[in-house]
Amino acid sequence: MSCATQRVLRTVTDLSGPAGTLPMSSYNNSARFNEARRVAIFGGTHGNEMSGVTLVNLWVKNSAEIQRKRVETKPFITNPKAVEKCTRYVDTDLNRAFSPENLSAPEGDDLPYEVQRAQEINRIFGPKGSPEAYDVIFDLHNTTSNMGCTLILESSKDHFNLQMMNYIKKAIAPASCLVLLNEHPLLKYSTSRSIAKHPVGLEVGPQPQGVLRSNIFEAMRVILKHALDFIELFNEGMEFPPCTVEVFWVSERIDYPRDANGNIIAMVHPNLQDCDWEPLNPGDPMFQTFDGKTIHYQGPGTVYPTFINEAAYYEKQQAFVITRRETLVASAIRKA
Amino acid sequence: MSCATQRVLRTVTDLSGPAGTLPMSSYNNSARFNEARRVAIFGGTHGNEMSGVTLVNLWVKNSAEIQRKRVETKPFITNPKAVEKCTRYVDTDLNRAFSPENLSAPEGDDLPYEVQRAQEINRIFGPKGSPEAYDVIFDLHNTTSNMGCTLILESSKDHFNLQMMNYIKKAIAPASCLVLLNEHPLLKYSTSRSIAKHPVGLEVGPQPQGVLRSNIFEAMRVILKHALDFIELFNEGMEFPPCTVEVFWVSERIDYPRDANGNIIAMVHPNLQDCDWEPLNPGDPMFQTFDGKTIHYQGPGTVYPTFINEAAYYEKQQAFVITRRETLVASAIRKA
Repeated sequence: MSCATQRVLRTVTDLSGPAGTLPMSSYNNSARFNEARRVAIFGGTHGNEMSGVTLVNLWVKNSAEIQRKRVETKPFITNPKAVEKCTRYVDTDLNRAFSPENLSAPEGDDLPYEVQRAQEINRIFGPKGSPEAYDVIFDLHNTTSNMGCTLILESSKDHFNLQMMNYIKKAIAPASCLVLLNEHPLLKYSTSRSIAKHPVGLEVGPQPQGVLRSNIFEAMRVILKHALDFIELFNEGMEFPPCTVEVFWVSERIDYPRDANGNIIAMVHPNLQDCDWEPLNPGDPMFQTFDGKTIHYQGPGTVYPTFINEAAYYEKQQAFVITRRETLVASAIRKA
Repeated sequence: MSCATQRVLRTVTDLSGPAGTLPMSSYNNSARFNEARRVAIFGGTHGNEMSGVTLVNLWVKNSAEIQRKRVETKPFITNPKAVEKCTRYVDTDLNRAFSPENLSAPEGDDLPYEVQRAQEINRIFGPKGSPEAYDVIFDLHNTTSNMGCTLILESSKDHFNLQMMNYIKKAIAPASCLVLLNEHPLLKYSTSRSIAKHPVGLEVGPQPQGVLRSNIFEAMRVILKHALDFIELFNEGMEFPPCTVEVFWVSERIDYPRDANGNIIAMVHPNLQDCDWEPLNPGDPMFQTFDGKTIHYQGPGTVYPTFINEAAYYEKQQAFVITRRETLVASAIRKA
């Protein structure tokens, strides 16, 4: 938390002085980025998250809706075998597979399917960390948690992405769209989108695995429209003034209570179930054991839980993640 | 519909005359049933429906809660391999596997896992249709549909079960519990519970696959408590007077709209999503195509859809089932 606070303050300091008095059209210290011409939209990174699978399949057939004059958008099914089986993955979670070790492992059929697939995707859309990598990758996900529309970032320092978040949030208002920031050194993982210069996760819920709900489908579609509009405006030369973005910063993973054999002995408490993003205060109910006892949150202060009771996270020993709410400042940006 | 209506009228006729004037404690034409001493509770017939899996696992460890003086209740995980993998099934749907062909197939390791398992379960709790079969089997299921608490019957002629439904509905009021009756000659299937003399399905939702929600867990637990109380009272000799039971009678399966290649081209319409059990009238919106067109219900009269957008039924080409609401009359019952 202190680290993140310092980050905000430092950014604010960068903008002090002239920024407040400059006209909107010009900022001496605008961050410069190359045009974001190459954009990919990934669906089916988890084969049973149906909004992304369905949208990307539609766009593979007809991509008119996602093309812009100055943006080439490539829709892509990342885990076709998992999509066919309508399962999260076949051998291992593709959205954890883009680690340096996996991407540099000697190729071969003995590698897990998703590791082979990660290498292939990295060849097409990466290589990760290289100048040849795609500019932006949107990776479309669904969650069984009551998270609404959530954009997931991996870095608080990517001002292009922070500006995009601000644009999308304003564009869809009064509907809401929250930003989850996962740059925790231990909880961050090697996502499919991480091979792009600007990786953006889009997580919309609640939707059960294997189900397509029209409200979730349409919400995801609208967010992508605004995201692509932002990139188009940026590529056309629009300058975006400094702004602030509220983010929820992942700070801790909370597991289900278990017995000595590792068996789960409690459920998410009904007072917490479906209350993603709402404050959880010390003493608030958190779990309910199968014999009816309440387990309370014992942390030192208010936190904001999310990914509450997500189906796919039982195997990851995670009942929810705890986040802390912060306001980040994004510098002005313009194209180089 | 006409068939079912006749059934009700015929039953009413059976009870005409003396029934209305008899004292509550004695009915000349009470249906007689043997004591229901042997009762099983099945969980994990679908390995990713977590309320039943969790309750049955708890009761296997400590069955005090489900025992009654005159009832021996056996909690049983029917598909342990699917439970371990947290998947609906391994080779084939166990809850469609109890057909005469499967149950009489020569045993062998080359049979699908669930067929082998069906034979094993039939040996323990059946044989299906024989006097040795268990008296009652409750099979615990969850659905992603917004069905609330649903009890599923396979016969309109089982007055023991109809009386049980009436008892449970009254016991949990003002909470509601609906009865789905599937005795459609083509849509009925060979359930796990069908090996018992009195098979009862319990379907509670909405709950995503692989998720345990406390509200769904507690609702299922309460219904089972009342069901076992009913059996205990019956075994003790209580006579249950004639009653009526509202049921929703499965009459048709509706598939998602598809293109010539069999690909789904529309979603459940937002006006219908989550509206299980509510009337669907001719002209009401039913589906929404991916390009925004509405498809309306064209049937001849009001129906009551349920299992709307259930995850597991995509592979069964079923967006929902249509039911017709009827009132059945149950005769008085007492033990033989």
